[in-house]
Amino acid sequence: MTTETGTLTDTDTDDGAGHAPHGYISDKKRYLDRLKRVEGQARGISRMIDDEKYCIDILTQISAVTSALETVALGLLDDHLRHCVADAARTGGPEAEAKITEASQAIARLVRS
Amino acid sequence: MTTETGTLTDTDTDDGAGHAPHGYISDKKRYLDRLKRVEGQARGISRMIDDEKYCIDILTQISAVTSALETVALGLLDDHLRHCVADAARTGGPEAEAKITEASQAIARLVRS
Amino acid sequence: MTTETGTLTDTDTDDGAGHAPHGYISDKKRYLDRLKRVEGQARGISRMIDDEKYCIDILTQISAVTSALETVALGLLDDHLRHCVADAARTGGPEAEAKITEASQAIARLVRS
Amino acid sequence: MTTETGTLTDTDTDDGAGHAPHGYISDKKRYLDRLKRVEGQARGISRMIDDEKYCIDILTQISAVTSALETVALGLLDDHLRHCVADAARTGGPEAEAKITEASQAIARLVRS
Repeated sequence: MTTETGTLTDTDTDDGAGHAPHGYISDKKRYLDRLKRVEGQARGISRMIDDEKYCIDILTQISAVTSALETVALGLLDDHLRHCVADAARTGGPEAEAKITEASQAIARLVRS
Repeated sequence: MTTETGTLTDTDTDDGAGHAPHGYISDKKRYLDRLKRVEGQARGISRMIDDEKYCIDILTQISAVTSALETVALGLLDDHLRHCVADAARTGGPEAEAKITEASQAIARLVRS
Repeated sequence: MTTETGTLTDTDTDDGAGHAPHGYISDKKRYLDRLKRVEGQARGISRMIDDEKYCIDILTQISAVTSALETVALGLLDDHLRHCVADAARTGGPEAEAKITEASQAIARLVRS
Repeated sequence: MTTETGTLTDTDTDDGAGHAPHGYISDKKRYLDRLKRVEGQARGISRMIDDEKYCIDILTQISAVTSALETVALGLLDDHLRHCVADAARTGGPEAEAKITEASQAIARLVRS
């Protein structure tokens, strides 16, 4: 969202090189750091299983990874509401309706997963 | 876990070579494959964020990883009940009680995470 | 929520007769029917416990109630995004920001509960 | 389970006095109190919807009920492991296997609901 043209491109799904199309760019580094940590934790769980560590300790690690992923998802969703959905609401019409339906479906998947 | 030496190694986290100490050994490869896939998916999510892919598509990926981790956790828990907890129940006494309390706490963490 | 007077009543909890203040009014009956069913299910669970029915059957009933409540919550949240949040987004400014922050927090509570 | 013969007494965890067939009998009152509260909360949510209270406040109430039901479920599951499953494990054989499979499936439903 730091490019001049970026602001209104939030609702497309084009990932064209060039201009940052989506709203969460400002926090990119924070998200990437968290996911790097998730990757490391997943590798750690593999090692624990390979070394046949105690089951309950592995489950604790898995709960930690799941929580970390939830935090990433909730952050992305907040960004999405704040940018894509709010922009679409301002535009109004069927596009706004569609964006909200899509967001609700993503929320339902998160709640039920 | 029916070997005489195995029974009491349940609570340590010793990964000593020799005698597979924990109950999930038979499925090790399946667990490792799944976790390898989780790692790959986490890397994929990082790339999607780095490339600023559409938010909702990233959320869908995160839900997939969370579900995969849940499947691993539920599998490990089933193995744990089937081996460690059942063994402890046969032994009885305070150790059995402690094993079940520990399993219940792990279940609560999974349900609430 | 498109009436002039409606828009700003979103944040109060006033239930004053007269002008339906919140966006889910159109589906009220559907929500009330579902909650009536949830109440009945809760009573059924009490009876099962009182009659000492089989544990697993009671757990199945509890999962059904939890799912029903989730469906109500996701429906209300969709309505809330579609009306209150979209209205606030159109107005813009700090109120819009506050509405989205509040919605994100409610989503986080649902995801984590 | 109010029949004299206790026909469906499953794993028969009968703990003394006549026919108490299932393991959670000692905590019956606590469970019934909690469920009475859940029923009251469900009625309260109906009233909030009928009075068109603020959406977010209703979602908060739903999260509270969901958490209360989870607590009941986790308590019943702990009791179930401690009595039915542990008893079956002591008996061993295919019945023990079946009890654990059934418990794992109930856990999966809780984790995924």
